[in-house]
Amino acid sequence: MASLYIAIAHYPVIDRTGKIVTSAITSLDLHDLARSARTYGAKAFFVIHPVADQRAFAARVLDHWQTGHGRQFDSRRREALDLTRIVATLDEAIAAAEAASAARPLIAFTSARAQGATGWDEARAMLRRADGPPIMALFGTGFGMAPTLAERADFTLPPILGASDYNHLSVRAAAAIILDRLCGR
Amino acid sequence: MASLYIAIAHYPVIDRTGKIVTSAITSLDLHDLARSARTYGAKAFFVIHPVADQRAFAARVLDHWQTGHGRQFDSRRREALDLTRIVATLDEAIAAAEAASAARPLIAFTSARAQGATGWDEARAMLRRADGPPIMALFGTGFGMAPTLAERADFTLPPILGASDYNHLSVRAAAAIILDRLCGR
Repeated sequence: MASLYIAIAHYPVIDRTGKIVTSAITSLDLHDLARSARTYGAKAFFVIHPVADQRAFAARVLDHWQTGHGRQFDSRRREALDLTRIVATLDEAIAAAEAASAARPLIAFTSARAQGATGWDEARAMLRRADGPPIMALFGTGFGMAPTLAERADFTLPPILGASDYNHLSVRAAAAIILDRLCGR
Repeated sequence: MASLYIAIAHYPVIDRTGKIVTSAITSLDLHDLARSARTYGAKAFFVIHPVADQRAFAARVLDHWQTGHGRQFDSRRREALDLTRIVATLDEAIAAAEAASAARPLIAFTSARAQGATGWDEARAMLRRADGPPIMALFGTGFGMAPTLAERADFTLPPILGASDYNHLSVRAAAAIILDRLCGR
């Protein structure tokens, strides 16, 4: 298997009006995405935020579960959160993944709207290649990632289509489904 | 397609020590599960809680998004939350589904640990039958449903296995993956 990384971006993302904004880190996103990342064998989960106070908040959440009371209360949360790396930029996440895997990761862009040329079977095959480059699945918050993040994509995964024309899954649900489609047994 | 319902149970569930408890309703569970239910074409999403105060809390969350400010702020949340029905017991959920679909739903039990005899292909085929009975996918909170809820199952879905031996997905992530495996395109 090629190495899998996941990352969640809080800037630049768009809000409901299409304006470019910075979104806040949500404690539950850290837990849910870390647990999904751990389940599907990701090497690390990068939380990307440009604001130092927000990174400090995320670090406090991790610290609670990695030391002291939280650690004793639920070791399974710690085991997932141990995968989490808090960084300021996508470039920092890419550099960390490259250092860990000795190869630059390909960025797999995800979006409820974008139409990529790469299908699920093709993406699964890329991950199964033992000598393939690492892949970093990039998730956005708010109403999706801004065009400058989309431009960083090496390829784009298809949107998740259910049984209806409604496609407003939470990022927690969408990331779980995408990991299952990429790596599920 | 047979009708699909989803339900989340807060009692009787087990805690980390195996004790039978009542869990609290989480606002984000309502949003995430409603959005996933709406995406995958479920007819309704039942929130089951035996405590009246907890049902009143859930009703306030729904009301916020269905009327006034919340409704104007994000109509897509309302569209998903409109599927939500707050009930006291599983029997009440079953009766409501039976009244809506004119047939008693089969209960599809979900668990990170249970080993059911029904595979994903078989469950998908059940849902594709136009004249098949409705199916209600039942999700637990806490550390899983108590044996008395498991006994209500007509069949049990397989656990979600990722690429590792870690299987502690959040209920939000697990429900999204299960809906995708049952009804995803």
